[in-house]
Amino acid sequence: MNNFSNDTIIALATSAGVGAIAVIRLSGPAAIEIVNSFFQSSKGHKDLTNVKSHTVHLGNLIDKDRVIDEVLVSIFKTPHSYTGENVVEISCHGSVYIQQEIVQLFLKNGVRHAKAGEFTLRAFLQGKMDLSQAEAVADLISSDSAASHQVALQQMRGGFSTEIQELREQLLNFASLLELELDFSEEDVAFADRTAFKKLINQLSTVVKRLMDSFALGNVLKNGIPVAIIGEPNVGKSTLLNALLNEEKAIVSEIPGTTRDAIEDEIIIEGVAYRFIDTAGIRSTEDVVESMGIQKTFEKIAQSQLVIYLFDLERIKIKETSIELILSEIEKIKEKFPEKQLLVIANKADVLSKKEIESLKAAILLKEENQISDLLIISAKQKLGVHELTTTLTQLANKGALSNNETIVSNSRHFEALNNAFNSIKEVQKGIATNISSDLLAIDIRQALFHLGEITGEVTTDDLLGNIFANFCIGK
Amino acid sequence: MNNFSNDTIIALATSAGVGAIAVIRLSGPAAIEIVNSFFQSSKGHKDLTNVKSHTVHLGNLIDKDRVIDEVLVSIFKTPHSYTGENVVEISCHGSVYIQQEIVQLFLKNGVRHAKAGEFTLRAFLQGKMDLSQAEAVADLISSDSAASHQVALQQMRGGFSTEIQELREQLLNFASLLELELDFSEEDVAFADRTAFKKLINQLSTVVKRLMDSFALGNVLKNGIPVAIIGEPNVGKSTLLNALLNEEKAIVSEIPGTTRDAIEDEIIIEGVAYRFIDTAGIRSTEDVVESMGIQKTFEKIAQSQLVIYLFDLERIKIKETSIELILSEIEKIKEKFPEKQLLVIANKADVLSKKEIESLKAAILLKEENQISDLLIISAKQKLGVHELTTTLTQLANKGALSNNETIVSNSRHFEALNNAFNSIKEVQKGIATNISSDLLAIDIRQALFHLGEITGEVTTDDLLGNIFANFCIGK
Repeated sequence: MNNFSNDTIIALATSAGVGAIAVIRLSGPAAIEIVNSFFQSSKGHKDLTNVKSHTVHLGNLIDKDRVIDEVLVSIFKTPHSYTGENVVEISCHGSVYIQQEIVQLFLKNGVRHAKAGEFTLRAFLQGKMDLSQAEAVADLISSDSAASHQVALQQMRGGFSTEIQELREQLLNFASLLELELDFSEEDVAFADRTAFKKLINQLSTVVKRLMDSFALGNVLKNGIPVAIIGEPNVGKSTLLNALLNEEKAIVSEIPGTTRDAIEDEIIIEGVAYRFIDTAGIRSTEDVVESMGIQKTFEKIAQSQLVIYLFDLERIKIKETSIELILSEIEKIKEKFPEKQLLVIANKADVLSKKEIESLKAAILLKEENQISDLLIISAKQKLGVHELTTTLTQLANKGALSNNETIVSNSRHFEALNNAFNSIKEVQKGIATNISSDLLAIDIRQALFHLGEITGEVTTDDLLGNIFANFCIGK
Repeated sequence: MNNFSNDTIIALATSAGVGAIAVIRLSGPAAIEIVNSFFQSSKGHKDLTNVKSHTVHLGNLIDKDRVIDEVLVSIFKTPHSYTGENVVEISCHGSVYIQQEIVQLFLKNGVRHAKAGEFTLRAFLQGKMDLSQAEAVADLISSDSAASHQVALQQMRGGFSTEIQELREQLLNFASLLELELDFSEEDVAFADRTAFKKLINQLSTVVKRLMDSFALGNVLKNGIPVAIIGEPNVGKSTLLNALLNEEKAIVSEIPGTTRDAIEDEIIIEGVAYRFIDTAGIRSTEDVVESMGIQKTFEKIAQSQLVIYLFDLERIKIKETSIELILSEIEKIKEKFPEKQLLVIANKADVLSKKEIESLKAAILLKEENQISDLLIISAKQKLGVHELTTTLTQLANKGALSNNETIVSNSRHFEALNNAFNSIKEVQKGIATNISSDLLAIDIRQALFHLGEITGEVTTDDLLGNIFANFCIGK
């Protein structure tokens, strides 16, 4: 797999559409030569195949006397490039027409259009980065919050893969010695130091477990903190969501119980992504469809990290509902999900006077005592108190935030490989404890090596690479 | 106006949105210094202020220990850059989040966000290009066909502005000599050679007239060839347009006479842009609104370069209309617009058998003899014959196409300035013929100089520059 590609690939590297400039990237052994044959330098006859790496040259791209564009050409010579191959980046005027003309020019002249992620795949195959770093490139490009960006950047810069690689090498070394013993089994020699091995296996087990544990946080940082917004029908959950989103994505309606299917939407507050899950109310109901919605609500609470319970001040005022009922519902949630962070919000503050709000608030706080950790009075419709809500969310999110240099696993493929490695390591530990034969031990060690190698790409299959890089955008 | 700007500006130069990479551009005296203070080279401590111009450097952008991204930084030193100032192009990972973070980093540190077209405005102010070249940059970015692209590129690369500039200089020289004469008017000396002057003025007049004449073609190349599609109501004009557009942009309806307002749509065939103008039928009618539509049709024919007359084979078959009527309508158009290229198309071929089509075609061709230059039988609905139509359009368009090195004016501001210059030149010529006094002649010459200078930007006002560059995109 680790051989040079023979063909040269091309793709638009910048976002599709009209811009001031666009960048088209070529990579492959012939990249510089091919661009050179269509390039006419602004300063006499410059030969791009003779210029230094990491230099930029102004000139025209010319196809049979027809000037396609005036461009800047950046030259990167193997192995000092993103892919490790010869790379040329053409910075052209950003009209879609020109972008297409330039790509077409090279497609007609022996260059192939790059597949999704093919530049990064080549970087991996040329040993410029390991597999987890390559995957981080895609994560980095799709990162949309400070947290997901930090996780991806850390992973791209080496992250935990160096640690894994070192431990894997030690284990590989031990496995070789163990297999050497097996070859000399009749002579009963011991090349492999069993005490050092036991220590290594325990160390590996600790590291792998720590990385596995970081996945829950990593996943949240990458995909956003799941927040379930619940409350009885028509208390303004969708309106609250809209106030937070500052746009009309969720369906808002005056008919109670219309939000039967959970709607998810993401909003980034202070660099942290939240996935808000708007769910049906939890009130008991005889409507079958509605009660299915309630079942879904409980499922969504289970999946969320933070629960917002919303109730309606107006209904309390007109005695359509009571504080007692609300407190019992909150209790029901607390009972069912004691570990979830719960934020209680009173909505529709706009229908009450300031004085009424104060006395209601006092009544609620008096009654609930230690039941509610936080109570906010807002008007989602009038967008009152929404800022206080976002501040509270940020405080709650920071409780579980990542410290600066923590190693985080955010990729579910890595988690799976770690999990498999962990199980193999447990088998090895069990084998050591029960003194199983070296040849059986060697099998479990090989298994652990395999799974650890999957993370960094020391063990790959074409299928695996295909799956990973198919999720990249073209041009990367 | 021609002084260096003191501040440093920044903008995203590539298309907005997610891409593999994005390019952020800074320009100004402090551009390199500022980027250097947040840049940490991958190879030890590289100082960007000490590197050569036109070199690329890999490293991290770091804000207070926080790595924002791994980037490639291209350095362009004054005056060898697009703007003529120090320019830095930062090529970062293409997530919108990262793009914003990088721009924000510099905005917080003394860099200002660039206004629309401000990079090109600076290039103009630094003398890197004249005004017509700067305008061509915007045209180039918005070019969407081979023809408009060629016109813009030619203008950007110097085009006619060199010619104008040279003639203007000669005229300026003469004007100075003439004004010198006025200073010495009591001594009756003649510094300015009247014969050479007469020759210069005539030459100038010829050049300006030629450039003015090129505007009709330049405008067509830039904005597309206007094609009027006409015919009696409900013969399938909109359907034909749709077949050409291959999408449902125009309103298609079964009620005759619904296309009261002309609908324009652009389609690019073989690198040439066409503006198809779908108009109401020309049949006489008693409906006032409808007959206003017919008036519009004539107006649209007047504005178009090519006229497609469409008629309905089915109506001839069922004798709802007759070949005689159609021929008389065609004659009416030919009479009113003898200079227009006319393409006659018989639509709804699908309702007839092959044999019926053949005999009808024979009958039409027999009757019309030399009246119709081209007859196509198509079915817009079934998309039969549409390819033949596009081929014919390409042939007709190429008749008026631009030869490779022709000088073309495509900018209406330039046309206006040329027109004003031409009028001043005519006044000068009249003055020479009638032997008016030198001081009056000098006024007309100054006027001509002023208008010629407007094209290349030797004469500008802040208002003029503001208007021109406001039409640019930000980042250019």
